[in-house]
Amino acid sequence: MARKLGKVLMKQEQEQFMAAAVAEARQAALLNEVPIGAVVVKDQQIIGRGHNMREHFQDVTYHAEMLAIMEACERLHSWRLEGCDLYVTLEPCIMCSGAIINARIANLYYGAADPKAGAVESLYHLMNDPRLNHQVQVASGVMQEECSQMLKDFFRAIRRRKKAARKKGRAGD
Amino acid sequence: MARKLGKVLMKQEQEQFMAAAVAEARQAALLNEVPIGAVVVKDQQIIGRGHNMREHFQDVTYHAEMLAIMEACERLHSWRLEGCDLYVTLEPCIMCSGAIINARIANLYYGAADPKAGAVESLYHLMNDPRLNHQVQVASGVMQEECSQMLKDFFRAIRRRKKAARKKGRAGD
Repeated sequence: MARKLGKVLMKQEQEQFMAAAVAEARQAALLNEVPIGAVVVKDQQIIGRGHNMREHFQDVTYHAEMLAIMEACERLHSWRLEGCDLYVTLEPCIMCSGAIINARIANLYYGAADPKAGAVESLYHLMNDPRLNHQVQVASGVMQEECSQMLKDFFRAIRRRKKAARKKGRAGD
Repeated sequence: MARKLGKVLMKQEQEQFMAAAVAEARQAALLNEVPIGAVVVKDQQIIGRGHNMREHFQDVTYHAEMLAIMEACERLHSWRLEGCDLYVTLEPCIMCSGAIINARIANLYYGAADPKAGAVESLYHLMNDPRLNHQVQVASGVMQEECSQMLKDFFRAIRRRKKAARKKGRAGD
């Protein structure tokens, strides 16, 4: 019974922090960026937040995870984020997976899988490579439905806008 | 003959830009950082420079390659560094390899191999994964001797300082 309660509380906690990552992703969508958000958590406190801003700043490194990690480093005055967890709405790419490993993040929680570029379980399994000097515990599928729906809605809206622009273009011919 | 001359010129050009990366690495050493330097080149011009500043800023993302790429993005006002080459003194880690791929860098030239964390040829072969939407041409061993000697000298000096500190500690007992 205690074990079951523990699991329920753990799920609640995970969803609480993933909800904060989802809120970050919504900020990205407001900037017309692909909606991906991330938070870094230490001792039940959020110490870093980030949302995708690659287009806005035209900087290839401005992924949600990178910005959340950079903020956490600044907050702790340390590049080592030992004992910290990272929550992100989409499976990290190679770059972000490398940053997570380099920062010694303890646990990674992600929402939706990324079959095209995900480097945690889809294309690679970078988080548990015994040759590296750090391994990261992974839990996937946290609030998966909400995280992936947000992305689907975003890309559907883009397709609609493009279709409407094409129609308008033809009407003006 | 023309082909041979072409090869000589190409080698000269590679060494010219790698020398700029080595100069960056020496800047890192002056800050007591592991001496790693990088430059991004487009149309024979250096458009981004970076040296490792991880300890100085306590930011896990401040690797030489990342800083050179960020500067190049700013310079071109674009996260896509198409037609750009990256020169770096040490084989890139997973994070930097991911950034190189994400930025669509055309050619990567590196000096020394990194058997413990290199993700280009040592632990992984990330640059030519056909599942990803971009592949990078790689040339390794450019000014290898100088690049690796610089690292050896740096770590030897650290060991010496530690040994001297231990001796001093014992003398003070």
